Amino acid sequence: MKYSGVITLTTDFGHKGPFAAVMRGVILTRNPSAHVIDLAHDIPPQWPPEAGFWISRAYSYFPKGTIHIAIVDPGVGTERDILIVEHDEHLFIAPDNGLLATLLDSSDTARVWQLDNRRLAVMKLDKPSDTFHGRDIFAPIAAELAAGRVSLQEISNPVQSWTPGWIDEPECSADRISGTIVTIDAFGNLISNIDAALIADFKEPVAEIAGHQLNMLSTYGRAKPGDLLALVNSFSVIEIAKSEGSAAEGLGLGRGAPLIMRDGFST
Amino acid sequence: MKYSGVITLTTDFGHKGPFAAVMRGVILTRNPSAHVIDLAHDIPPQWPPEAGFWISRAYSYFPKGTIHIAIVDPGVGTERDILIVEHDEHLFIAPDNGLLATLLDSSDTARVWQLDNRRLAVMKLDKPSDTFHGRDIFAPIAAELAAGRVSLQEISNPVQSWTPGWIDEPECSADRISGTIVTIDAFGNLISNIDAALIADFKEPVAEIAGHQLNMLSTYGRAKPGDLLALVNSFSVIEIAKSEGSAAEGLGLGRGAPLIMRDGFST
Amino acid sequence: MKYSGVITLTTDFGHKGPFAAVMRGVILTRNPSAHVIDLAHDIPPQWPPEAGFWISRAYSYFPKGTIHIAIVDPGVGTERDILIVEHDEHLFIAPDNGLLATLLDSSDTARVWQLDNRRLAVMKLDKPSDTFHGRDIFAPIAAELAAGRVSLQEISNPVQSWTPGWIDEPECSADRISGTIVTIDAFGNLISNIDAALIADFKEPVAEIAGHQLNMLSTYGRAKPGDLLALVNSFSVIEIAKSEGSAAEGLGLGRGAPLIMRDGFST
Repeated sequence: MKYSGVITLTTDFGHKGPFAAVMRGVILTRNPSAHVIDLAHDIPPQWPPEAGFWISRAYSYFPKGTIHIAIVDPGVGTERDILIVEHDEHLFIAPDNGLLATLLDSSDTARVWQLDNRRLAVMKLDKPSDTFHGRDIFAPIAAELAAGRVSLQEISNPVQSWTPGWIDEPECSADRISGTIVTIDAFGNLISNIDAALIADFKEPVAEIAGHQLNMLSTYGRAKPGDLLALVNSFSVIEIAKSEGSAAEGLGLGRGAPLIMRDGFST
Repeated sequence: MKYSGVITLTTDFGHKGPFAAVMRGVILTRNPSAHVIDLAHDIPPQWPPEAGFWISRAYSYFPKGTIHIAIVDPGVGTERDILIVEHDEHLFIAPDNGLLATLLDSSDTARVWQLDNRRLAVMKLDKPSDTFHGRDIFAPIAAELAAGRVSLQEISNPVQSWTPGWIDEPECSADRISGTIVTIDAFGNLISNIDAALIADFKEPVAEIAGHQLNMLSTYGRAKPGDLLALVNSFSVIEIAKSEGSAAEGLGLGRGAPLIMRDGFST
Repeated sequence: MKYSGVITLTTDFGHKGPFAAVMRGVILTRNPSAHVIDLAHDIPPQWPPEAGFWISRAYSYFPKGTIHIAIVDPGVGTERDILIVEHDEHLFIAPDNGLLATLLDSSDTARVWQLDNRRLAVMKLDKPSDTFHGRDIFAPIAAELAAGRVSLQEISNPVQSWTPGWIDEPECSADRISGTIVTIDAFGNLISNIDAALIADFKEPVAEIAGHQLNMLSTYGRAKPGDLLALVNSFSVIEIAKSEGSAAEGLGLGRGAPLIMRDGFST
């Protein structure tokens, strides 16, 4: 795999304090030509699935050879491992806590590695802190890999198993898909893990959520202001929106809420 | 026009999720040497005038040849057009929904183009989604223009008319200017669309807002803590502030509120 | 000092509006190869010590030769001076309002300069606004210094005194350190100004805060969910956390709250 020099950061650090910035600083100190992009820093703490969801849906819009660091890491400093995944000419680095499960479940060709802490000496790392592996381990590794100074073989071992995901993949029958709201965007749109391909054969797809039955529209502007709608969003998953409003507030729903897609034609 | 490679982003995406990041990814994939800057992502949805206001006041601080993308786009996926404006050796790309009206109203020399969707094949675009033209149309266009691989002539047609602005330009008489609060900054300062030049001839300018009459001061530190003041802010418009506090909260006012500037000398 | 071209920004601008972006624009206009990093923009207005704390704790993670601009500047446009500090092969530029006091108190070798406004003509500055020196003075200075086009000698004078800090440095006895909460991160962790080195000789360090007595743990995951803990955080200061929760909310405490570290062995 040839690295592009682009490195993305997805974390639960929020937008307070210098946490993402010092990761950039560490990367630039080791690799001045790296190009670091903040993918998202608003993942809720204790909710790794959202980081995994966004990474698996967003990575393909970055150059081939991009390294994606994801840190939602309640177990930092305990015995949890760090996974490195090679998939579709992109590299992903994250704690082994289920964060990358969605990506791994969707890939037949991913190669998975586990970081070997005893072999980090090759990178001349300082002793890592117990609470900020993003700065002390993830950032230097990404910088050195992107610079071509270390290889995966030198610092990690292939593995065949990993921590499973925190939310179930959608449950599917011929006319019914049962999925989960994974995240909410800044507009209050409820974004699910149901891929549009799963309802491709439905003649009259209907979304069932919180007692509402919603037809599919192509875009927000097709609904009357204030109306709820379901649509295939720009990342190819089913989304529940409220035209010129917040579906999350309107329905009183959040992450983890169930969403059913039904084929209205067959009932 | 010679492009600098700098591309700014102004949106209503907020700071949640990977939306701005994937625009960066798309730009870098097509144009690895582009330099993308987040101008603002906190524009309120459904309030394009604020994006237009900030762009028209801020663009001149960027290098000549910068491309400014602005996306506050409630009509995405409907029949609304996309405008491209060349003004003062900067380029502006936005939905034709009034967002760029302030800039266009202030310019005698702007050249205005309308994107021709049927001619985008030259750029090898994938079929755009219905809901994220920022990623699927605006970002690739900016990347290709900045790289010099496509020209405005190839993808757009000159136009002479466009959607008007959402808020009136200030109404002016010899001793009275009637304007509007366009935005509120992080300190709670109320920022209006009244340019300082409009009151340049006032001998004793007085700001009238929510029943208060405020004299002009040069800077925040000239007022007593807790006092309201009016000043010409750093973007050369009239601003209402509260020393060491929030004028927006103190006055209970927001975007769209009226502000009158009066010449106290003439009354 | 050889500049790396990296420039960091620490401000109280929040994440609204184009304020940080226009500083980037100004820097890039003068110095297209500069690499600007947002260190933090969420410093509370009127609370310069937090900016100084983060800068003094974070700077060493950036390349040698980085210029750190810090702007929490309630006195902008009044007679307050601007300091430039050279320390450990990094450069720091900030208003002389106590912001850099923590850094200066901890350094024996820092060289301190005061900007001489009358000598800025060498940089061809426009007349600065009264309210946005970040854009009109700090950004151009950093850009020109990093480009090697001006020197400290040309625009500033050495000084031996400056405005003291706003919060006391920790008070120390053999078995008791009395410090202050300086900032709160996105997780609600309370971060103090007590350096871990100050309790290195304590046999059984105990944190006293808001009537609680807390033992030290090595990391968040070592505590039961919901439990309060004290730890040495990744920036080597004492931090009070709540496992899977917010210590700030749980204790009802904020910036400025007192924290005592005591040696439990000696009582």
